[in-house]
Amino acid sequence: MEREGRKEPRDGEAVSEGGFTYRDAGVDRGAADAVKDRLGRLVESTRTAGVRSGFGSFGGRFLLEEGGELVASADGVGTKLRVAFRAGRHDTVGEDLVNHCVDDILTEGAVPLFFLDYFACGRLDPEIPVAVVAGVARGCRANGCALLGGETAEMPDSYPDGEYDLAGFIVGRVAYPAVARREIREGDRLLGLAASGLHTNGYSFARGLLFGELGLDVDDPWPGLGGSVGDVLLRVHRSYLEPLRGPCEAGRVHALAHITGGGIPGNLARILPEDLDAVVDTGSWQAPAEFRSLAELGRTDRDEMFRTFNMGLGMIAVVRPEQMRTVCEAIESAGCPAFACGELVRGSGEVRLEDAG
Amino acid sequence: MEREGRKEPRDGEAVSEGGFTYRDAGVDRGAADAVKDRLGRLVESTRTAGVRSGFGSFGGRFLLEEGGELVASADGVGTKLRVAFRAGRHDTVGEDLVNHCVDDILTEGAVPLFFLDYFACGRLDPEIPVAVVAGVARGCRANGCALLGGETAEMPDSYPDGEYDLAGFIVGRVAYPAVARREIREGDRLLGLAASGLHTNGYSFARGLLFGELGLDVDDPWPGLGGSVGDVLLRVHRSYLEPLRGPCEAGRVHALAHITGGGIPGNLARILPEDLDAVVDTGSWQAPAEFRSLAELGRTDRDEMFRTFNMGLGMIAVVRPEQMRTVCEAIESAGCPAFACGELVRGSGEVRLEDAG
Repeated sequence: MEREGRKEPRDGEAVSEGGFTYRDAGVDRGAADAVKDRLGRLVESTRTAGVRSGFGSFGGRFLLEEGGELVASADGVGTKLRVAFRAGRHDTVGEDLVNHCVDDILTEGAVPLFFLDYFACGRLDPEIPVAVVAGVARGCRANGCALLGGETAEMPDSYPDGEYDLAGFIVGRVAYPAVARREIREGDRLLGLAASGLHTNGYSFARGLLFGELGLDVDDPWPGLGGSVGDVLLRVHRSYLEPLRGPCEAGRVHALAHITGGGIPGNLARILPEDLDAVVDTGSWQAPAEFRSLAELGRTDRDEMFRTFNMGLGMIAVVRPEQMRTVCEAIESAGCPAFACGELVRGSGEVRLEDAG
Repeated sequence: MEREGRKEPRDGEAVSEGGFTYRDAGVDRGAADAVKDRLGRLVESTRTAGVRSGFGSFGGRFLLEEGGELVASADGVGTKLRVAFRAGRHDTVGEDLVNHCVDDILTEGAVPLFFLDYFACGRLDPEIPVAVVAGVARGCRANGCALLGGETAEMPDSYPDGEYDLAGFIVGRVAYPAVARREIREGDRLLGLAASGLHTNGYSFARGLLFGELGLDVDDPWPGLGGSVGDVLLRVHRSYLEPLRGPCEAGRVHALAHITGGGIPGNLARILPEDLDAVVDTGSWQAPAEFRSLAELGRTDRDEMFRTFNMGLGMIAVVRPEQMRTVCEAIESAGCPAFACGELVRGSGEVRLEDAG
C-alpha cells in the first residue's frame, strides 16, 4: 500500500507527482497529517480477519483461510509516461510498471502470481495500447507472472487525444518468510543493488530541468553522456526478483527496501525498527553518470538529490555481516552489480547519509 | 478481465467511453478484431500454471498451489466521474467502483477478499480524495472486503485541476462452484435482479443528452421524474452479493451475467454456450422511469436502449425452473426486487429480445 502516494520531495513548480503533495500544494504539514490520519482510519474501518498489514506498507498482506499469505500492491507509472509520449515510445512503460510492482511486493517477501492493468486514454492510435500491453506482457513473462486481466477505458472527455494513464495491480504470495519478518539488528550490513536508471521516480525534477530549463528534447544527446535524453530517461525499471531469488531462498536476506519516491532516506526508514539507525556510506559506490549530470546541471545539493532519486541503488538488502560476501556474489553472478553501502547501528529509526571518504 | 474495455455502443459524438471504441474511432471491424487478437496473444504469452480463465471473462481465475481458486478483476468508474465533478459530490463513486467489481467477480462464483484502488488527479482540495476513499471504504465494509492498499498519484501535467480518475482492483475466492461451473441447459429460467439506476454504464449517452442536447445541469429536476438529474445519475451501483448469497450458497444459481457495457444482449451472450439462445421477455418487467425518460427524450429505439443501458436489470441469474420461486423469494426478502424475465432455448449462443405481451 502506498496510500501516501508517490512522494516527490523537490519544492516548487517542477514537482508534478506525489501523494496530494501537501507541501507543494501549500497545505501545511499538520493538515496533511490530519488527512493521512483520516485515510488511515477509513482503511482501518475495512479490516477483515485476513488482513496482516498496516497502513503505509510496501504491499498489503492477506492471510488465506486455505493457508498461505498473499501480498498485493497497486501502482502507477507516474510522469515517466510523459517522456514516453514525447518519445512516441510506448512499449517500455508497461515493463516499468510490472517491475516496480514486483519489487514492491518482494520487500514483503512475496513472489508474483498475477498482474492486472488499468489503461485509460483519450482517442489514440490502437497501436499504442497494443505496444503498452506488449510491455506489460514482457514484464510479466520475465517475472513468471500471469497477466490475468485488465481494463481499458477510452475517455476522450478526460484524457487528451494521444495520451493515457497506466496503473497496475499485482498479487503475490509470501515465499521468503525471512524477508517478510524483518528481523534485523545492530551490526547488520546494507547491500545496495544497482539501479538501471531513474526507474520510476524523480521524473518531474528531470523533466523540468532537461525539457524545461535546458530546452532539450528526447532525441538530443544528454550533455556529457553517451545516449539521448529519451534513451536514458526511458531505461526500464529493474526487477530484482532474479538477482535476489537465490539469497532469499537461502534465508540470507532479512529485509528489503525498494528505493522509490523519497529515495534512500525515505524508503530505508520504512523498514527500520525504532531502536536502529541506518548509516549509509555515500562514498561506497559512485552514483551513475545521469545522476551526477542532473546534480551538476541543476546545481542541486546532495541531500535533495538523495531525496529525489535512487542515486543508483534501486533496492537495498539487509544482510548479516558474515553472509555479505556470499549474498553479494550471488547477486552479481545474476548480472546485477551490488555494493556494501552501510550498516545498522543503535539509534532511533533515522537514516544517516555519511561519506566515510 | 475486461480487455475489450467499456463498451458504449451508441454511434456518434456522444460516445466517450468504451474499449478503444473501434467503430467510433473510425477503425473498421476487421482492424479492431486484429487488435483484439494481438492483445489476446500477448495475454496468452504470460499464462502460468495457475491461470484458469481465458481472455475476455468477467474476472481472471487463478488456482493457488495451497488449494482454493482466486478471481481478480480491474475496473474504472468511467465517465460517471464527470457527473460527480459537476455535482461536486465525491463520496459515492468509490462505492460504485467497489460494487461494480464485487458484481463482476460474483459472476465467476467468487466472494471478495480485498480491494485496492488507484486514484490519479490534478491539483485538488485534499477533502476530495478523502471523500472518494470514504466511498471506497463504505463499499468495502458493506461487502466484507478489506481495503488492502491503494496508490495516489497527483499529476497536474496529466489531469486538470480538480479532476481525477479512479480505478479499482478486486481479488476474491471462489465460494460458489455451481456459479463458476456454468452448467446451464435448455429450459433454465432467467431471473433479473433490479438495478438501482444506470449503475456505471451509458453515461456518455445520458450526459450527451441531458447536459448537452437538453442543456440541463445536475441540480435541475429530471423532466417528469421526482429527483434532480444529479441525484438520479449518481445513484450507487448495486452490489448483488447479499441478495444472491443465500441462493448461491444453496447451489441454486447456475450462472450469473453482470449487466454492464453492452447491456443485456452483450453480457448475457458472454455466459451462453454455443448451443443455447437466451430469450428475454422485455414485457416481463417495466424499465424504471429514468430509462423510459431517456428513450423518450432521446427518441431512441428499444434495441439501442438495450445495448446502452441495463434497462433496470443489473444482474441476471440462470436458475432451474423448479427452483425459481425459492430463489426469487430469497432475493426479494433481501430487499432486491427480482423478475422472471426469460428462458434458455436451443439455439446458437444468441440473445433474443422479445415482447411476449
